[in-house]
Amino acid sequence: MASESGKLWGGRFVGTVDPIMEKFNSSITYDRHLWEVDVQGSKAYSRGLEKAGLLTKAEVDQIHHGLDKVAEEWAQDTFKLNPNDEDIHTANERRLKELIGETAGKLHTGRSRNDQVVTDLRLWMRQNCWTLSALLWGLIRTMVDRAEAERDILFPGYTHLQRAQPIRWSHWILSHAVALTRDSERLLEVQKRINVLPLGSGAIAGNPLGVDRELLRAELNFGAITLNSMDATSERDFVAEFLFWASLCMTHLSRMAEDLILYSTKEFSFVQLSDAYSTGSSLMPQKKNPDSLELIRSKAGRVFGRCAGLLMTLKGLPSTYNKDLQEDKEAVFEVSDTMSAVLQVATGIISTLQIHPENMARALSPDMLATDLAYYLVRKGMPFRQAHEASGKAVFMAETKGVALNQLSLQELQTIRGSWHRVKKKAAVLVFYNLHQWACPNSFWQCFC
Amino acid sequence: MASESGKLWGGRFVGTVDPIMEKFNSSITYDRHLWEVDVQGSKAYSRGLEKAGLLTKAEVDQIHHGLDKVAEEWAQDTFKLNPNDEDIHTANERRLKELIGETAGKLHTGRSRNDQVVTDLRLWMRQNCWTLSALLWGLIRTMVDRAEAERDILFPGYTHLQRAQPIRWSHWILSHAVALTRDSERLLEVQKRINVLPLGSGAIAGNPLGVDRELLRAELNFGAITLNSMDATSERDFVAEFLFWASLCMTHLSRMAEDLILYSTKEFSFVQLSDAYSTGSSLMPQKKNPDSLELIRSKAGRVFGRCAGLLMTLKGLPSTYNKDLQEDKEAVFEVSDTMSAVLQVATGIISTLQIHPENMARALSPDMLATDLAYYLVRKGMPFRQAHEASGKAVFMAETKGVALNQLSLQELQTIRGSWHRVKKKAAVLVFYNLHQWACPNSFWQCFC
Amino acid sequence: MASESGKLWGGRFVGTVDPIMEKFNSSITYDRHLWEVDVQGSKAYSRGLEKAGLLTKAEVDQIHHGLDKVAEEWAQDTFKLNPNDEDIHTANERRLKELIGETAGKLHTGRSRNDQVVTDLRLWMRQNCWTLSALLWGLIRTMVDRAEAERDILFPGYTHLQRAQPIRWSHWILSHAVALTRDSERLLEVQKRINVLPLGSGAIAGNPLGVDRELLRAELNFGAITLNSMDATSERDFVAEFLFWASLCMTHLSRMAEDLILYSTKEFSFVQLSDAYSTGSSLMPQKKNPDSLELIRSKAGRVFGRCAGLLMTLKGLPSTYNKDLQEDKEAVFEVSDTMSAVLQVATGIISTLQIHPENMARALSPDMLATDLAYYLVRKGMPFRQAHEASGKAVFMAETKGVALNQLSLQELQTIRGSWHRVKKKAAVLVFYNLHQWACPNSFWQCFC
Amino acid sequence: MASESGKLWGGRFVGTVDPIMEKFNSSITYDRHLWEVDVQGSKAYSRGLEKAGLLTKAEVDQIHHGLDKVAEEWAQDTFKLNPNDEDIHTANERRLKELIGETAGKLHTGRSRNDQVVTDLRLWMRQNCWTLSALLWGLIRTMVDRAEAERDILFPGYTHLQRAQPIRWSHWILSHAVALTRDSERLLEVQKRINVLPLGSGAIAGNPLGVDRELLRAELNFGAITLNSMDATSERDFVAEFLFWASLCMTHLSRMAEDLILYSTKEFSFVQLSDAYSTGSSLMPQKKNPDSLELIRSKAGRVFGRCAGLLMTLKGLPSTYNKDLQEDKEAVFEVSDTMSAVLQVATGIISTLQIHPENMARALSPDMLATDLAYYLVRKGMPFRQAHEASGKAVFMAETKGVALNQLSLQELQTIRGSWHRVKKKAAVLVFYNLHQWACPNSFWQCFC
Repeated sequence: MASESGKLWGGRFVGTVDPIMEKFNSSITYDRHLWEVDVQGSKAYSRGLEKAGLLTKAEVDQIHHGLDKVAEEWAQDTFKLNPNDEDIHTANERRLKELIGETAGKLHTGRSRNDQVVTDLRLWMRQNCWTLSALLWGLIRTMVDRAEAERDILFPGYTHLQRAQPIRWSHWILSHAVALTRDSERLLEVQKRINVLPLGSGAIAGNPLGVDRELLRAELNFGAITLNSMDATSERDFVAEFLFWASLCMTHLSRMAEDLILYSTKEFSFVQLSDAYSTGSSLMPQKKNPDSLELIRSKAGRVFGRCAGLLMTLKGLPSTYNKDLQEDKEAVFEVSDTMSAVLQVATGIISTLQIHPENMARALSPDMLATDLAYYLVRKGMPFRQAHEASGKAVFMAETKGVALNQLSLQELQTIRGSWHRVKKKAAVLVFYNLHQWACPNSFWQCFC
Repeated sequence: MASESGKLWGGRFVGTVDPIMEKFNSSITYDRHLWEVDVQGSKAYSRGLEKAGLLTKAEVDQIHHGLDKVAEEWAQDTFKLNPNDEDIHTANERRLKELIGETAGKLHTGRSRNDQVVTDLRLWMRQNCWTLSALLWGLIRTMVDRAEAERDILFPGYTHLQRAQPIRWSHWILSHAVALTRDSERLLEVQKRINVLPLGSGAIAGNPLGVDRELLRAELNFGAITLNSMDATSERDFVAEFLFWASLCMTHLSRMAEDLILYSTKEFSFVQLSDAYSTGSSLMPQKKNPDSLELIRSKAGRVFGRCAGLLMTLKGLPSTYNKDLQEDKEAVFEVSDTMSAVLQVATGIISTLQIHPENMARALSPDMLATDLAYYLVRKGMPFRQAHEASGKAVFMAETKGVALNQLSLQELQTIRGSWHRVKKKAAVLVFYNLHQWACPNSFWQCFC
Repeated sequence: MASESGKLWGGRFVGTVDPIMEKFNSSITYDRHLWEVDVQGSKAYSRGLEKAGLLTKAEVDQIHHGLDKVAEEWAQDTFKLNPNDEDIHTANERRLKELIGETAGKLHTGRSRNDQVVTDLRLWMRQNCWTLSALLWGLIRTMVDRAEAERDILFPGYTHLQRAQPIRWSHWILSHAVALTRDSERLLEVQKRINVLPLGSGAIAGNPLGVDRELLRAELNFGAITLNSMDATSERDFVAEFLFWASLCMTHLSRMAEDLILYSTKEFSFVQLSDAYSTGSSLMPQKKNPDSLELIRSKAGRVFGRCAGLLMTLKGLPSTYNKDLQEDKEAVFEVSDTMSAVLQVATGIISTLQIHPENMARALSPDMLATDLAYYLVRKGMPFRQAHEASGKAVFMAETKGVALNQLSLQELQTIRGSWHRVKKKAAVLVFYNLHQWACPNSFWQCFC
Repeated sequence: MASESGKLWGGRFVGTVDPIMEKFNSSITYDRHLWEVDVQGSKAYSRGLEKAGLLTKAEVDQIHHGLDKVAEEWAQDTFKLNPNDEDIHTANERRLKELIGETAGKLHTGRSRNDQVVTDLRLWMRQNCWTLSALLWGLIRTMVDRAEAERDILFPGYTHLQRAQPIRWSHWILSHAVALTRDSERLLEVQKRINVLPLGSGAIAGNPLGVDRELLRAELNFGAITLNSMDATSERDFVAEFLFWASLCMTHLSRMAEDLILYSTKEFSFVQLSDAYSTGSSLMPQKKNPDSLELIRSKAGRVFGRCAGLLMTLKGLPSTYNKDLQEDKEAVFEVSDTMSAVLQVATGIISTLQIHPENMARALSPDMLATDLAYYLVRKGMPFRQAHEASGKAVFMAETKGVALNQLSLQELQTIRGSWHRVKKKAAVLVFYNLHQWACPNSFWQCFC
């Protein structure tokens, strides 16, 4: 008889079970990650029941003592799962009952797994956001340090992957670091919305037993309390936001990875990955492949896939808790793990990357000065559109003649229709590389110290 | 010769063109939406050039006068596009040159379409966020007003679409309104990141002509200035964030729509859509279909599709501007239009919806009191797990006997194994519906006033 | 020294390793699923080397014997992984070397992990498609059997979730079964494209040692041979197709699940899930929740997320093998497992579902005859548009008077503007339910036998 | 009064309308693309009504004549839309009524917009598939022709974007062409499932008036007839399949585009786009940007976004027609237009692309022979694993000494631990490039003739 099995819903069901359905339904294989926060939440909740007069001080002590034992078993990996432990909540309460007896049966009073699980998940994710935030800043810091150390190295800036204008190598590094600072800002915003207490919402209709939610909030150190019990048990905005945060962060890292993969080709030869972040080929002995970067690039897809999956699952769901929401946790765990690995690997890559400044310098071909040539004419009073056209014609002439832009003679330049008479001394045009001081001011470095 | 055609890149190209490629490449069919902000941006930029000594006061006046004329033509729908106007920037500058002559050719000095287009887009989206925010609050306000007016109506709360516990109808309304307040909060955060000035970043390497970016910021009333020129011209985080904001907001509205579609079925009969938001069938004369709600539900897919599309486009792009980024604008315009329509239609639906309180009351079947029954036993000192099981057995007994839960006699209840001796007076159990005051406190209403 | 570690790329690398990168890079935790097909592929490949004169008969025997031992260890779960076994290919070959010595080092001649892994994956997926196909047909068969057994039961057909016209219950079942037959057709097509041999493509440039690919094809029973080595090692169309196949199949099952969730609400009460496919509530004793159906519905998101993730990973990759492609396998394994569980659970649900024909019959409200009423008038010679309008007015009149459509008197009907004079005998209108024989002809049943 | 407005649902509604809802609900702005197939479908349907005895021959003639006039107006762009023409079906029937009077009202007998719209869409898509198929083969043909013409040009094959082994340039071209042939195969399969007649399914419950569906099928030249009316009116598999087909095809083209973008960088300099498919920079006169390729790459995102959007819309929908399905058409039209443009532009790019064989040859660096070196040792009897290691050490030695692999002396080679004694004559190792005949046999070319 089903009630014998100790399932939470007790004496209701009389039918038999389908083992595939049991496994399909069970979440213990992944929600066991929540063991610690589940214990934490239950301890706080027992305080709430105490204040509401539903548990005595002695019972609370007994429960806390039992829960500490449960936690210890998990920590020491001695917790034994039963086949009927379909989720972490059931498992922990079942074990608690074995340890302290009937009092365990009072812990769930006025609580539902609907508010319990979402409390657990928020506690877990709050902690996880701190971890990811620290890793993210570790990466940003590494990039800024590197940029500062290498700020005088120049190399080609590309648009459309065509050489555009000379830029600092540090400017490139910071262009990616700046994107990551936005990710950091967004992560804090997501975390703020994670850090809200849903406990006390029951299954749907709240807690009628007078449990003090402000006490629960304080016990668990949440920043705020959810406003509506139907919403609190069924909204997964904070999960969707987290997954999207990760997706956007990954597109940034995928773009940086793409650049570095290109720069480490033989053709560019601007950088070289350390051996720790490369692998070889099982067939081709000379190969050194940027596997680490390719994996980072690829994970953008995987992470976004989780975000897409969750949104599709949420779309069109009826109000309140539906079992569909069980899809949230695996997505969170997998994406958290991925982000953690990616951020650490990216930090390792950046901190060990070798650069080849001589190759970078060699790639600064004279035609990249065409814009500066146009600006020169602008300074001489020519409207920009004409200057742009005149400079373009010089590029075309140089290409046609098979010489570099700065090898054109003044006479040659002056044959260009109606504009080069302004150029008196050719050499004057090609004086300097635009170093764009504004783009990496001291103040920027300082903000990271 | 290509330079004759007045294309921006002037004297460089000598080949011919493919008309399909021309059309494929052109963005004027949709970026014309930006005409007003493009003029606005150019006026501010000319002030920057003036301060940098690259335009005289007289030239600036001439340019402003010309741009006002351009704007007037757009506003009056008399602007004539040329076949070579591939984008709004080209079109406006071409027309300006026709109106004021060669001075127009100075306006683009030190500016690139790369920083120009992203400035325009940010200006447009900033304004659009205000519009959407107002529409969103119009909807929330309507919901709160309605919830307040109908706060004493009860109906079944569902979990897993099964009747769970009685709740207030207003609690249901507010459960959706609360979700929308999070959308509002998020929109403000997105808007904050939209409201940052990229102008002055040039194509990639910044502006070497000493244009004062702080002046540009102040002229255009941006909240901050982008830090890195490579990032500024190629990051589309603010677009991705906006599209995701819309996607998440749409999942909320899709869930509300799903509820209302269910509640307006003959089987539920809790609500009835006004005729303005229903349509009939071309075949079945008796039908009244909730088309408005179905369209809202469906748009969640469309909007998310745009978000997915943009992220996929961004993934793995090399640094800085690549033409791929041209995909951003159509997504923004389409999603903005959709959100605007959806929010207005949703407001109309909520404000005109009829409810059937008598059907709602009728649906409050006695077995929904089973939780309260368990709580009654808890108050009598029984651990919740036992109380839950005992209450479950009572439900099963009632079901087996074919009577309602509250029709079981005390004697019958007491036959349930070892628990019902605590029940002395059956009637006392079934006294009240749990009204969950905490879930919709006065303070909540007040925060919207 | 790295070569000591036995890594495949041997004496090339001199740097140290990052343990996080090692784990990030490693695929053995999931590609171990491929152990059997990896052995199978290697046995075939050694035959190829033998024919090419690169292995002697004795060496092949030795290798086969060793590989059989490897397989045995996997089958008996006694295979011990080394920390350096980064993937299944490395693990198996390392173990083979331990078992048979240096000859093992000849097995990889002319082969690359690039062609090896994709051969393995195709072998695995080919087999998996048969499994899924059988499960899919098990479900379809169950549905058809049930439809045949219950073909005389009528209930409301809905469009827009509004009652539309009476239909057979079996017609509903078959509407979902028909969708699944398309899934079956598509799965065969995908399988056909899976069943193509890539082995012999090397890393990129094919096999220059004269290995006979036709022999490999025959050994491994592939239907065809890939045409181009660059494409063969890097295309994952067959994976993308499989993931999309699963996504589309899941949308079908999500729609069927949605229907059944609705039909099992108290409000519809058309069906009741067996206890084996429901669960209870930890808070509300009376609840019986359709968790199985909700899980099926939710998995549509998860599965599609994998498809989205892979496509995003593939987008914009350069030619040939890039490590990004390592993302393919987890997606395939997870989706295969999900589909297997979903199809079995769905079969269990359908085969144990109870229906309530009396509730179905009760829901056939008279206004559902409005279309038949219009057809009656059409048969009397009225153009359909007028008949539709006349019937619509009758519905409106009945609604206004608060009576059912068939309770309107003939006199009342005849007051409707200009059309009901054609109705002589009211009763004649409402004779029969449209049973739509064409929609479920005998021939349809037969095609499943 | 609503019935005056001529809306299809006639005399039912009494409320007023919301203009935003009207626009939100209306599909005429895009479904007008269907004008021709809508007329075609209606002509066929009138034949069906004639055979069923519901129209006379004269009425059919009148209807056909009227419909021809309607079509003529569309073709000559003189069709005038009314504000109440919410979709193409309503518009065409309204106009027909104006042209031929009351007989027009008989055309919709037994038909619903539910089966009408899906018939129209299938007819449109069937035709569109032929168009896309022809464009796809135009591209493949161009690629094959080019590959044949340039089959003797060698260049580096890359894996992980690192130089791997020398390959033919034609082998690269064909690697992409082969992928497109799979797209072609898939498109035919999709088209087969598009080419099925749903007409006669009514709104949900079929056609009770005896319309001969085989006649309809033959009139409209469909390959088969849908089996179930509930499924036929609400399944959009063929749309989802088409969108996925396009998405997968676009990932192929995005990968080819990525390669060509890389190959056209200054650093690779293997190819040069014709001016017709490049654009310049508004700021940098020397730039020539591969905009066409970038746009192709980006469209992979857009197209996939439509696919994702549709699947999300479909997920969890209840059975049969829901208004959500209206989302299908814009997706189809947009994606069809995109594919048409992309395929034509890609064909233009390939047919006008210049290649630089001398740069390609120069990039074939000696270390790319390392695999051949290993194979040489294999042929001398060394197990591949040892040969791979020995060859890797030679690469490392050459790198350390700063010379090319083929500049190592025999003496130097022989210092490598225990393996190079087998090498007697150094020169013999480096004889030939592996030309991989099998990968592009004559038979492959022939299959395209």
